[in-house]
Amino acid sequence: MKILKTPTEVQSVLSGRENNKIGFVPTMGAFHEGHLSLIRMSLRDNDITVVSIYVNPTQFNDKDDLAKYPNTIDEDIKKLKDLDVDYLFLPEYRDLYPDDFNYKIVETELSKELCGASRPGHFTGVLTVVMKLFNIVKPNRAYFGEKDYQQLMLIKGMADAFFMDIEIIAGMTIREEDGLAMSSRNLLLTPEERKKASVFPDLLRSKLSDEEVIRLLQENGFKVDYIEQKFGRRFGAVYLGQVRLIDNV
Amino acid sequence: MKILKTPTEVQSVLSGRENNKIGFVPTMGAFHEGHLSLIRMSLRDNDITVVSIYVNPTQFNDKDDLAKYPNTIDEDIKKLKDLDVDYLFLPEYRDLYPDDFNYKIVETELSKELCGASRPGHFTGVLTVVMKLFNIVKPNRAYFGEKDYQQLMLIKGMADAFFMDIEIIAGMTIREEDGLAMSSRNLLLTPEERKKASVFPDLLRSKLSDEEVIRLLQENGFKVDYIEQKFGRRFGAVYLGQVRLIDNV
Repeated sequence: MKILKTPTEVQSVLSGRENNKIGFVPTMGAFHEGHLSLIRMSLRDNDITVVSIYVNPTQFNDKDDLAKYPNTIDEDIKKLKDLDVDYLFLPEYRDLYPDDFNYKIVETELSKELCGASRPGHFTGVLTVVMKLFNIVKPNRAYFGEKDYQQLMLIKGMADAFFMDIEIIAGMTIREEDGLAMSSRNLLLTPEERKKASVFPDLLRSKLSDEEVIRLLQENGFKVDYIEQKFGRRFGAVYLGQVRLIDNV
Repeated sequence: MKILKTPTEVQSVLSGRENNKIGFVPTMGAFHEGHLSLIRMSLRDNDITVVSIYVNPTQFNDKDDLAKYPNTIDEDIKKLKDLDVDYLFLPEYRDLYPDDFNYKIVETELSKELCGASRPGHFTGVLTVVMKLFNIVKPNRAYFGEKDYQQLMLIKGMADAFFMDIEIIAGMTIREEDGLAMSSRNLLLTPEERKKASVFPDLLRSKLSDEEVIRLLQENGFKVDYIEQKFGRRFGAVYLGQVRLIDNV
């Protein structure tokens, strides 16, 4: 596996590979089985797989959340090598944002709902960095997990709105044995919080009304951001201590 | 010359032409010598030249201005045929904006100054439509006139910020014999206004201070939006009757 640090390096190793199918998995690292399942899909379906690890500051509306975001880069690199990924792109802020975030992609409808309502600017940061990464890597296919379903819908919407010639492929949410959706943020839960966390997907999947789910979550010590139905799914975001968990079923 | 109406048509005629250099001149029609000079540059330097004519509603902050924008489509098509342009792209709103303008490119510094200060949202509309057109046509080079210098800077900035693999090429401002910068909006001037209009470039080019230029323009019946120095140039925007004129020297 070759590690690439700058957009120029990526462009130079991939130029002339137009006849190869390129699969791309953009991540913020701290890999769990959800990431690895997307990477395996890419390896299976493309000639070249590029994974990026970049904890994108412009999508964190909360500086503390950014500071605490888990970093397991050495283990991540080992996992990518074991999977035989072709390229890891590890950019830095100054390389991805030569404009210092003066140019942004803003979506004005869906990005204001659900997670967008409580995380102002979050999806602007996500869409902006994804557009940059797409234009650098120029993949044929890009892979995103359904756990971040709203993000997936917004990235599909952006690709359509801007006529980007990239197939956006969704990977199923991967869950722990107790049903908790895998997430890098799960690493931040205390052992007691982790034990309690599976109440969240259990209630989300239940036949109970949104109001009953909210009441039961609160009784169990969760702080509820939202429980809401959309796209024929039930979405939820909760806090357990300082840790924000999201899911959809 | 082939006329293409939809993004899909453009993509299908240009696919497989990756070994040809594609030059692209996006316009709002009502051609004058400024447009034609850009098109000649593209024809000279590329294998294929695509011109688009699209009066982009999202960049008009003033509905009246949009309604009055000159339309000379039959003459425009004749001129393109005479020049032997390869493709004319004539899209409609529903084709370019499947998202109904939910996804936008927003710039937060330069776009707020000069023309951006008095035309809120103008450059968001410009950048958004240019990004869409770039992604549809996938040109190697794209041509813009220096008359719209701020627009040119913003498009270059967007191309850099989003790692777009397109060379942005500037064409010199083309002027009438009396020095007035050619502009589609000049067609909207009354004969008396047209006669007086050359006072604007004359004063802009003079050694007089910005304040003196403003005073003399006002004395001559111009309404002044701004006269301002930036990028080692003097920029100006004025109204003559209902018509907005811009220039830079």
